[in-house]
Amino acid sequence: MSNSQSTFTPIQNLQAGSWLDAVTWNEQGLVPVIAQEVGSKDILMMAWMNRDALLETLRLGEAVYWTRSRQKLWHKGEESGHTQKVKEIRLDCDGDTILLLVEQKDGIACHTGEHSCFFLQWDSAKAAWVDESKSKK
Amino acid sequence: MSNSQSTFTPIQNLQAGSWLDAVTWNEQGLVPVIAQEVGSKDILMMAWMNRDALLETLRLGEAVYWTRSRQKLWHKGEESGHTQKVKEIRLDCDGDTILLLVEQKDGIACHTGEHSCFFLQWDSAKAAWVDESKSKK
Repeated sequence: MSNSQSTFTPIQNLQAGSWLDAVTWNEQGLVPVIAQEVGSKDILMMAWMNRDALLETLRLGEAVYWTRSRQKLWHKGEESGHTQKVKEIRLDCDGDTILLLVEQKDGIACHTGEHSCFFLQWDSAKAAWVDESKSKK
Repeated sequence: MSNSQSTFTPIQNLQAGSWLDAVTWNEQGLVPVIAQEVGSKDILMMAWMNRDALLETLRLGEAVYWTRSRQKLWHKGEESGHTQKVKEIRLDCDGDTILLLVEQKDGIACHTGEHSCFFLQWDSAKAAWVDESKSKK
């Protein structure tokens, strides 16, 4: 994964094609998408795309997801400014998960203001999820 | 993420508790799980857990998933030997994705024999997914 050249550049006039059918869309027409930060390799978040979201991401060069709660396309950072510039896109062996390598604007991916959404850590001694965020008590 | 101490050790006699309800299980009672390799920080695979799979993972200290195709608990590596020793477990801000930090036995996570399942790379010049696996033609 780390040895390959990035081969991603946006294609503004990209049209749907057989490459879109290489993705295994679930019964809702969605695929889970992992966003990983280039450089640090930190996992920032997990979100979902439908066909339009993937097409828009490839056209724009920034992450566009499908929000299941609001049921619409979501250009990540359109309100917060915390956009994700796509550097590389990968698909897994059975086509049912997408991996985005991104540059995270301002280093903040989470709506809580955290770098990564994964700030809850399992603590065996406490048998509990412990908040490891900057703002933890 | 990289600054914290790992706080994971297996708890053989762990029982279900409120910590299990902190996870946002989907309508099938499942949660997506990202497996990331400790050290390299490579993303190895994405799979699913139900409550029993998470409980077994925490008890055993090795990744146990729920296979949707076979509809059963799947102790990863039980046939291939490519087990995943859990070093850390994280949950995201809305509880609907789990992140496992693992030591991957033999460095092979994918059923194809690849290190990572994410060996298909988007190539903008070709507008296609290109096979970046070791065995690519």
